[in-house]
Amino acid sequence: MSRTVIRNGLVITASDEVAADVLVDGEHVTALAATASGLGDQWAAGADAVIDASGHYVIPGGVDAHTHMEMPFGGTFASDTFETGTRAAAWGGTTTIVDFAIQPVGGSLREGLDSWHAKAEGHCAIDYGFHMIVSDVGDQSLKEMDMLVGEGVTSFKMFMAYPGVFYSDDGRILRAMQQAAGNGALTMMHAENGIAIDVLVRQALESGRTDPKFHGQVRHPLLEAEATHRAIQLARVAGAPLYVVHVSATEAVAELTRARDAGLNVFGETCPQYLFLTVDELARPDFEGAKYVCSTPLRPAEHQEALWQGLRTNDLSVVSTDHCPFCFTPQKELGLGDFSKIPNGMPGVENRIDLLHQAVVEGRIGRRRWVELASTTPARMFGLHPRKGTIAPGSDADIVVYDPQAEQVISAGTHHMNVDYNPYEGRRVTGAVRTVLSRGKVVVDGGEYRGHPGHGRFLPRGTCQYLI
Amino acid sequence: MSRTVIRNGLVITASDEVAADVLVDGEHVTALAATASGLGDQWAAGADAVIDASGHYVIPGGVDAHTHMEMPFGGTFASDTFETGTRAAAWGGTTTIVDFAIQPVGGSLREGLDSWHAKAEGHCAIDYGFHMIVSDVGDQSLKEMDMLVGEGVTSFKMFMAYPGVFYSDDGRILRAMQQAAGNGALTMMHAENGIAIDVLVRQALESGRTDPKFHGQVRHPLLEAEATHRAIQLARVAGAPLYVVHVSATEAVAELTRARDAGLNVFGETCPQYLFLTVDELARPDFEGAKYVCSTPLRPAEHQEALWQGLRTNDLSVVSTDHCPFCFTPQKELGLGDFSKIPNGMPGVENRIDLLHQAVVEGRIGRRRWVELASTTPARMFGLHPRKGTIAPGSDADIVVYDPQAEQVISAGTHHMNVDYNPYEGRRVTGAVRTVLSRGKVVVDGGEYRGHPGHGRFLPRGTCQYLI
Amino acid sequence: MSRTVIRNGLVITASDEVAADVLVDGEHVTALAATASGLGDQWAAGADAVIDASGHYVIPGGVDAHTHMEMPFGGTFASDTFETGTRAAAWGGTTTIVDFAIQPVGGSLREGLDSWHAKAEGHCAIDYGFHMIVSDVGDQSLKEMDMLVGEGVTSFKMFMAYPGVFYSDDGRILRAMQQAAGNGALTMMHAENGIAIDVLVRQALESGRTDPKFHGQVRHPLLEAEATHRAIQLARVAGAPLYVVHVSATEAVAELTRARDAGLNVFGETCPQYLFLTVDELARPDFEGAKYVCSTPLRPAEHQEALWQGLRTNDLSVVSTDHCPFCFTPQKELGLGDFSKIPNGMPGVENRIDLLHQAVVEGRIGRRRWVELASTTPARMFGLHPRKGTIAPGSDADIVVYDPQAEQVISAGTHHMNVDYNPYEGRRVTGAVRTVLSRGKVVVDGGEYRGHPGHGRFLPRGTCQYLI
Amino acid sequence: MSRTVIRNGLVITASDEVAADVLVDGEHVTALAATASGLGDQWAAGADAVIDASGHYVIPGGVDAHTHMEMPFGGTFASDTFETGTRAAAWGGTTTIVDFAIQPVGGSLREGLDSWHAKAEGHCAIDYGFHMIVSDVGDQSLKEMDMLVGEGVTSFKMFMAYPGVFYSDDGRILRAMQQAAGNGALTMMHAENGIAIDVLVRQALESGRTDPKFHGQVRHPLLEAEATHRAIQLARVAGAPLYVVHVSATEAVAELTRARDAGLNVFGETCPQYLFLTVDELARPDFEGAKYVCSTPLRPAEHQEALWQGLRTNDLSVVSTDHCPFCFTPQKELGLGDFSKIPNGMPGVENRIDLLHQAVVEGRIGRRRWVELASTTPARMFGLHPRKGTIAPGSDADIVVYDPQAEQVISAGTHHMNVDYNPYEGRRVTGAVRTVLSRGKVVVDGGEYRGHPGHGRFLPRGTCQYLI
Repeated sequence: MSRTVIRNGLVITASDEVAADVLVDGEHVTALAATASGLGDQWAAGADAVIDASGHYVIPGGVDAHTHMEMPFGGTFASDTFETGTRAAAWGGTTTIVDFAIQPVGGSLREGLDSWHAKAEGHCAIDYGFHMIVSDVGDQSLKEMDMLVGEGVTSFKMFMAYPGVFYSDDGRILRAMQQAAGNGALTMMHAENGIAIDVLVRQALESGRTDPKFHGQVRHPLLEAEATHRAIQLARVAGAPLYVVHVSATEAVAELTRARDAGLNVFGETCPQYLFLTVDELARPDFEGAKYVCSTPLRPAEHQEALWQGLRTNDLSVVSTDHCPFCFTPQKELGLGDFSKIPNGMPGVENRIDLLHQAVVEGRIGRRRWVELASTTPARMFGLHPRKGTIAPGSDADIVVYDPQAEQVISAGTHHMNVDYNPYEGRRVTGAVRTVLSRGKVVVDGGEYRGHPGHGRFLPRGTCQYLI
Repeated sequence: MSRTVIRNGLVITASDEVAADVLVDGEHVTALAATASGLGDQWAAGADAVIDASGHYVIPGGVDAHTHMEMPFGGTFASDTFETGTRAAAWGGTTTIVDFAIQPVGGSLREGLDSWHAKAEGHCAIDYGFHMIVSDVGDQSLKEMDMLVGEGVTSFKMFMAYPGVFYSDDGRILRAMQQAAGNGALTMMHAENGIAIDVLVRQALESGRTDPKFHGQVRHPLLEAEATHRAIQLARVAGAPLYVVHVSATEAVAELTRARDAGLNVFGETCPQYLFLTVDELARPDFEGAKYVCSTPLRPAEHQEALWQGLRTNDLSVVSTDHCPFCFTPQKELGLGDFSKIPNGMPGVENRIDLLHQAVVEGRIGRRRWVELASTTPARMFGLHPRKGTIAPGSDADIVVYDPQAEQVISAGTHHMNVDYNPYEGRRVTGAVRTVLSRGKVVVDGGEYRGHPGHGRFLPRGTCQYLI
Repeated sequence: MSRTVIRNGLVITASDEVAADVLVDGEHVTALAATASGLGDQWAAGADAVIDASGHYVIPGGVDAHTHMEMPFGGTFASDTFETGTRAAAWGGTTTIVDFAIQPVGGSLREGLDSWHAKAEGHCAIDYGFHMIVSDVGDQSLKEMDMLVGEGVTSFKMFMAYPGVFYSDDGRILRAMQQAAGNGALTMMHAENGIAIDVLVRQALESGRTDPKFHGQVRHPLLEAEATHRAIQLARVAGAPLYVVHVSATEAVAELTRARDAGLNVFGETCPQYLFLTVDELARPDFEGAKYVCSTPLRPAEHQEALWQGLRTNDLSVVSTDHCPFCFTPQKELGLGDFSKIPNGMPGVENRIDLLHQAVVEGRIGRRRWVELASTTPARMFGLHPRKGTIAPGSDADIVVYDPQAEQVISAGTHHMNVDYNPYEGRRVTGAVRTVLSRGKVVVDGGEYRGHPGHGRFLPRGTCQYLI
Repeated sequence: MSRTVIRNGLVITASDEVAADVLVDGEHVTALAATASGLGDQWAAGADAVIDASGHYVIPGGVDAHTHMEMPFGGTFASDTFETGTRAAAWGGTTTIVDFAIQPVGGSLREGLDSWHAKAEGHCAIDYGFHMIVSDVGDQSLKEMDMLVGEGVTSFKMFMAYPGVFYSDDGRILRAMQQAAGNGALTMMHAENGIAIDVLVRQALESGRTDPKFHGQVRHPLLEAEATHRAIQLARVAGAPLYVVHVSATEAVAELTRARDAGLNVFGETCPQYLFLTVDELARPDFEGAKYVCSTPLRPAEHQEALWQGLRTNDLSVVSTDHCPFCFTPQKELGLGDFSKIPNGMPGVENRIDLLHQAVVEGRIGRRRWVELASTTPARMFGLHPRKGTIAPGSDADIVVYDPQAEQVISAGTHHMNVDYNPYEGRRVTGAVRTVLSRGKVVVDGGEYRGHPGHGRFLPRGTCQYLI
């Protein structure tokens, strides 16, 4: 079993910042010792590898709880495969993803999960788990939910948006939540009133408002807030916990705050695009706005403050990417002349840790909160802790050595995601990933990729660790 | 033209209480004079009739903005016709009703309205107007809405409950609200999440919970609050006002309060059954609970306090009856063994003024608020003021001479509604209607009915007078 | 007894708008008749005077519940005497004022009230009542409160501001509120945290920030909100109602909203200066900002929207003036080089009705709400209704014939208040008072003053009519 | 330097639960290693002592941020000296206290701090820090605050209660907060409106309500909520953070929630007595209620639920004891016949960890939250982390080996606090402290006290680590 010592760094977890050396034995963290203690010297003596982290942060690898590799959408597929997407994740300091398997309408959960296992197995650079998208609630699929929990797929996503595709009506949602209340699973919700939005979409198109910018207008913030409130009430009736994905609107955050003030098991996630970009991007000329089409949509700038505050008050407790890349050419161009045909989604899995570190640099969040939002909380939320999300004796050696002073410019020219643009193109940030270990193995180091497809393994997950 | 003088009473309106004589010329109030002025003597000298109201209140006739005469429901019809129902209303001091015409699914608004005109015309004891229930939103019915507003049908009701019957989905609701935003109409909403409720109904029945009391359990207060919130957000998106009917749950009142605090054009109505009865009635033995089946359902006692407070804070501003009587035998019995088959509805049009006066007696509301809730506000809300809802020069002479000291016991044995039970059976109240004038004509006096079918006329209404 | 008929106008009260003729016999309204009825012809035949109100509004005279005639402040006196001030009020369509008698520190309520009676009696153009400022709560003054209620002085004002002058600490406030809970009186509160403000004042002066504009900075909106909340809690502990005067800050309105949502007997007043002027006025050059020094202070423009909304939601229910004029030369100049020495107060008693009508013209409030805010609610709030605040049989004939189309420019050059500036100088408004009757006597008509000192009488008042 | 290894326990911190061995070198934690790694064997080989923690929790020693050893109050002194009190703390698993030095009225902070140093130095069993009670804000004491921050006294408490004793008016509070805004200190607040309470106290005594139970009535929950709100607004005006001590009322928690939802730097503390006892104790016969007199007072049972929820939502983030013991005989008896003369305070420093563990047993909080509330958060709040509040390489070896299965009965007969009663007398709890290390030294082990006075050292503290 290979031994590695990471020396002289500042080990940062969600709760502590300590000058410590980290001993890795095989796939796990074995021990931490105060740098000043000299134990690191002993360890280094017998180690296969010694990584010097002087002047660097040593943080648990990122956990991106919301990705869509190779996802079918609108007649095309997200452009990152599990191979390219997880490699890009590793480059960006993320060592775990939880992707979404999809139940085919008319098909079973089993069928959907198996097909996603097939896509991922043997291809991933880092470890991965699955949530399950339930597109077709029925007696059979409800029963299957219990089975999947047993297999470590412990969270189920439903959509209040996208009628005719992933949409579930309130009765189906309620039934699935009741099932989750029994089996301990966590319900994840895309909370937008898709039925009402589709009316506005149709009206926009009929009146010739077909450009990407109208995507941001028809998906009204109040229709996100409405669905958020509705999902919360349904969860209360079912007695089940709720996790609302990609929250973007001030008014939706307010609904989460209300629920959490009441002590409910309700959790919110937001994504870097909502924190760092605004609806103005959708108005870019030459159809370039299409690059910024995702749902929930980007919002006017004033919403960002509410999101940052939500991250500070913990009314938002996870930052995931909703990574779902489509190339501008030819994928996004499917929606030329009809914004509703633009595949919804943006890349991001590689940029999350850096963008959030930029928020540290700018004083919006502290370092421990950075680690918490990007790694610890998603790990605990989705039953992966303490294996993932921390650096502690016994945890998986998923570790990032992070250079807090390095400067970089985000660009499609240098990124590793399989997509022809980067939504943050040209943005200068301070901080960069230097070395990444996945289960003890160095997969990225100093600008060199040293991982390989198939290193990453499927993670059967436990249930949410935040339930009260 | 016949002249009547009502002398020596205390004239109570929403804003004033004055010792005044009222001069009625033909169908209208012509003048009010201070009792002490002696003008009443002059008037009496030339009058055809003099009514002595010494020791009595003289109040504007009640406006019941929510009745369902002869309404088809669950394979039967509400047991009061326009003839029997309006007669009972007059007995109870109500001189105007606004009933609901129904668009047949697959049919037009025109067709529905015409058929309701046919039911009512020539049969009513008192004046009446119509709201329109929109069951089938489409391009055609949206256009018809404008036409109906022109005919004085200025309010349109939709249902978030009753899937497969009156239910409209959020897209249809949004479209109708947009139309109302343009033509000035008021959207009325039955706010319960019927899709979710139907799941709970099915689960109850499948598990053998078939008694009437389960009606009160499956229609969860949070599913009323949820729908109330949703209706408010849809109205905000559409830029339209909203009137929520038969509010019964604390949590729903809270949503109205939030909206009204924000200055929105959102209004709430409750009914006597929610103020004076509780869910416990549904558990009466021998299927008698069925008499108390209505939707929204009766709630646990603690909700009553929130409703009374809402009436004081004006977060609830109208008390209507939702009068929709079904005889216990055989109508309510349709639901023996399956509570979901019990026709939904209760009688009440005759008892509203007395029950609310009882709240005056008990100190819950003041006398002017009594008049306001029962007459003035519904008249202004639905575009009937100042013709109805007040006693002022020029207003219709719809006047009730009310004895505040009389004692009575409510009972099916003595009531005039065409239904074989009274939900308030045996309740002793203080106060009673003595004389009722409808457009200047005495229709009830001292225990004698002096009206006749066809006296009541259709009231084309203006639009809501509360919009900001 | 003299008879007057006011013909052909639109009579507007808080609840009704009717085309009616008004018969005035002596000091009272005797009757109202529909204009179309012809009764007005009969009345006119036997009348001493006929006033043609064609094309005009006929409204109840204004009730200004917050004036300070001849008030001593900072070593000088408000520049309007009861004679000049009530005359100006009449010019502006206000026929009742409630002024503040002041208990001298170390003295009795009796002594204070008597001295105010002496100032007012025989000098007033219109009727007047008194509130009592309690500056020195003690066993004796608490007992006197009961006596004053018996004399028709039914409201007592205390100050959380002005330490060393009118300030009462929370213990004294609580005791006075307890007394009011027993005798039915209404506690009025100047809600600003004067103790904290004085620290900020001293710090400003010590650092050379001495100009009038710093008056607006040191009196922080949160210190108004804080005191408002505190007053509400003390009132709850005492079980007493509360009326907060001159509310100006968004955050203070929010506290009133919270309290009123909870059904508490808490009421809020604002003033035209907060609705129509902003803190920017305080920065006028050449010390002219001093003209705009009053407390609570003028606020940044964004607060105005909250105040207008409060007026619509009834979380603010009265608009009074806090009329307390000081001439720029030499009175306001007392504060040259030290803003804290500028006498606090602004004129306004003459402009209130017109400014609020301007809000009608601009669509902010409706006509009935205009009457309600300016006349009916203050009359009911302070126990003067139905004698004042309405036009109804038996009420005092305090009536304004208002020309809704007249245009005028507000100016010190034309106003009748005894002060050398007008804070609304140069503002063009639509609408003007034409004729004013006080207890049946014409005191202003078509630009001519026909009243005389001593016509106005002291009004013993009943208690607040809004208590639940 | 002595080496100790703690083996085979479950190491629980605020964020992790790991099966790990802990290596202690001298006063510090040097390293943690996975139990399964075998490193512990190596360490044990060279160790001076090996502690077997099989079946036990290994947690960071408790940090009690609110104690009053030897505090003068009402003519007597809290009965625990620093010697007896810190020894009892150690028995109870608390290894750090932060006590309150008191500025004498008319004296300097320096003088107060020196005198507390004198009381503590050389007597403490465990480490200790000081907050400073500012009783007399003035130019001099404000300057001294900066100096004290430099000496590691970084938090200053003020009282809105106790007029004439510790009370500061709002102006003094504001000034001190402004000073704290500049020097980084944290303002701690006893939030009760003492001015109003004293009126109620006097009224109670004058009317013969002199028993201890009236203590609970006069200190009204709304007067706690009021002061809490006021302190928050003053802190906002000053731009300073705020920590509210011993929160006990539902309404006060609501104010904290409002503030925290707005993202303010506002924090709340509660104490075991409010979580586990109710106002009913104050009504115990034979004056025994006096044992339960503390301020804020014990509340009716329904408040407990709000406190527990506040602990879950983190609107309350610290549980301290407010340990301030007075013997029943003769100290509490000072208040016979006059509850206001009963010394305010209760013992608790020894029972906190066990009582909170009981909440773990009962499912109210999780194990990590237990550690967080009792140790980690107070350490971070008061600038002691990571030295205190965690078990991490480099942290002080303040460690408790806790037996989660042991059963014990709390009793004055067995406790080690110097007071003749225990407020939890007879209460059976599950869980008990077995071994306690303070800076690497075993001070309690298996029912034996092995510490000594003077082991504990003064802790200069950094500033609050939660500021945003």
